[in-house]
Parts: sequence; C-alpha cells; structure tokens
Amino acid sequence: MKALIISAEDFEDLELLVPYYRLKEENIETDIASIKKGSITGKHKYEVIANKELKEINPKDYAFLILPGGKAPQKIRHEEKAQKIAQAFNNDNKLIAAICHGPQILISANLMKGKHATSYKEIAKELKDAEALYEDKEVVVDGNLITSRKPEDLPAFMREIMKRIKINK
Amino acid sequence: MKALIISAEDFEDLELLVPYYRLKEENIETDIASIKKGSITGKHKYEVIANKELKEINPKDYAFLILPGGKAPQKIRHEEKAQKIAQAFNNDNKLIAAICHGPQILISANLMKGKHATSYKEIAKELKDAEALYEDKEVVVDGNLITSRKPEDLPAFMREIMKRIKINK
Repeated sequence: MKALIISAEDFEDLELLVPYYRLKEENIETDIASIKKGSITGKHKYEVIANKELKEINPKDYAFLILPGGKAPQKIRHEEKAQKIAQAFNNDNKLIAAICHGPQILISANLMKGKHATSYKEIAKELKDAEALYEDKEVVVDGNLITSRKPEDLPAFMREIMKRIKINK
Repeated sequence: MKALIISAEDFEDLELLVPYYRLKEENIETDIASIKKGSITGKHKYEVIANKELKEINPKDYAFLILPGGKAPQKIRHEEKAQKIAQAFNNDNKLIAAICHGPQILISANLMKGKHATSYKEIAKELKDAEALYEDKEVVVDGNLITSRKPEDLPAFMREIMKRIKINK
C-alpha cells in the first residue's frame, strides 16, 4: 500500500507533516508530489522534499490521497493534472482525505457536489457554492471522502484515515 | 492512562505537536506542563497552551512522560521540580521519551549514567560526559527510556512509544 500527498509552496506545515510522519510510523510508503520536484517550504518554514512532480503520477500506484491545506491548494487547484489525479482516486472509490484549504482542489475537480464535507471556515461558502453539504465538525466522513477544518483537527482526521486504511490492509 | 509533556518557550514545534496529536488520536488525555501556565510559542511560531505549571504536577497521576526538544529543555533543566518529576517517573519504571534537546533535562536530573541513548548531535558530547552510552540512531530504547535525535526521527520515536503504551493498555 502506497500513499500520495499533493502539495506546494506555503503548505500548512502540520497538515502535511503530521500525516506524513504518521504514515511513516506505520511503514506506509508515501510520495509527495508537487508542481515540480524538489524542496517546498511551509508557512511555518519547515522544508520538505517533493519527490515526484504531478505529471509523472499514475494514480493506479496509490491506495489513497492526502491533500493538506495552507496556501498550497490555491496554487495546485488549477493544475489539470491535479484535478485528473483526484478524479481518478474518486472513480476507483479510493480514500481522499483533505484538510483546511485542501478541499479547494476537490472543488476545482468537480468532486464535491452532494458530498458531506468540512473545510477551513474561509472556504465554507465556496464549498456550499459547489453544492457540498457543509458541516462545521472536526472531521466529516462521506464514503471515500474524509475532510477536516484546521491543524487542531489532525487527531480526528488521522483517526478516521487510519481506521479506513487498516480496514483495507 | 494519562500522559505528561514538559516544555517551555521555543520548543521544537513538531517534537511537541506530533506526539501531542498522536496521543489525542488514541484518545489519551495529555497535560502540557511548563514553568508557568498559559501560552508557549515554538521556534516555528506554533502556539500551544501549557494547561499545568510544573509545581502542581503529581507524577503519580501520569503513565508516561514526553520531553520535546528545541530551546525549551535548556530553560527547564535547572528547575528542581522538573528534575524531581523525571526522577519520579524513572523510579516507578514509567516510560520517559525524550527527543532532540529533551535529554538535557534527564542529564540535569542525573538519570543518564549507563543508559543507551541518543539526542540532537550538538548534545552528544554532553550525554557522553554524563556517562550515557551514546548511539547515533533514529531511536534508542533502553528499558523505560526512549530517545531520538531530531524531528525527522518522529515516526520511529512514536512507533516505539506506541508499542510500549499499547503493551500497558
């Protein structure tokens, strides 16, 4: 089982690194893909290496997708390849977990209509406009979609992700 | 089962927040104690609330102790109460997990002599001077003591902590 994280410059540091380290704790191999390969820096100045670029990703290689927040989703959401990756995970009913601004990518990929979801409060309106069923809760699970609002929700976000992953192990 | 984290201003953000969120994921109640109660800010500007001050801590209330790194341990190590807390955990053979500069508190508490341990590389000499058996590994386990070197070691650090905790559950 292999995981994919998609992010970019100005990611929310904890929202990328907490899931990344949590998956490493479980010995789950995880790729970080960005617009190009190499170092990306979070809002809080942690640096991580994107070891893949979006255009080389084959969604079939991965069991699930994590979309951290920060300002990164705004930079990624209009990348056609990012939208196609998210759509491929969804078509295969694979887990997509998005936190904070992460759901912006799913809005641009037209995947939110009719879905129960949450997000950072600033994009609640945007989610509702995309016909998602917005809920102000630490974590919302709807089928293959797990969403949370902010870094403080990471314990609940990870709890739901691990539950789903362990079922599939 | 209840956990205690001891830290202070200028903590290494991930080394405090990754364990804190991981324990919350497991629904383990965790207190954060510092020199005084209230907000403390990490080197990377994350803010957390110390909900206890050192002097009100009774070690008997806790199953294990986590000591994150950063510049915080330097501020805490000479607090007599912090030393006494660490000694009490050790006397009861309770888990003590220290990362990065965290072991400085254990050096000041005279708990490192003869112990296999690691730390941030800058304090390797200090550990050796305290007669610890220094090893340059991502995680070192010696009885009730778990030590790691830096944020990138957090997956291995947490894996060993969770192993030990789950045995005791």
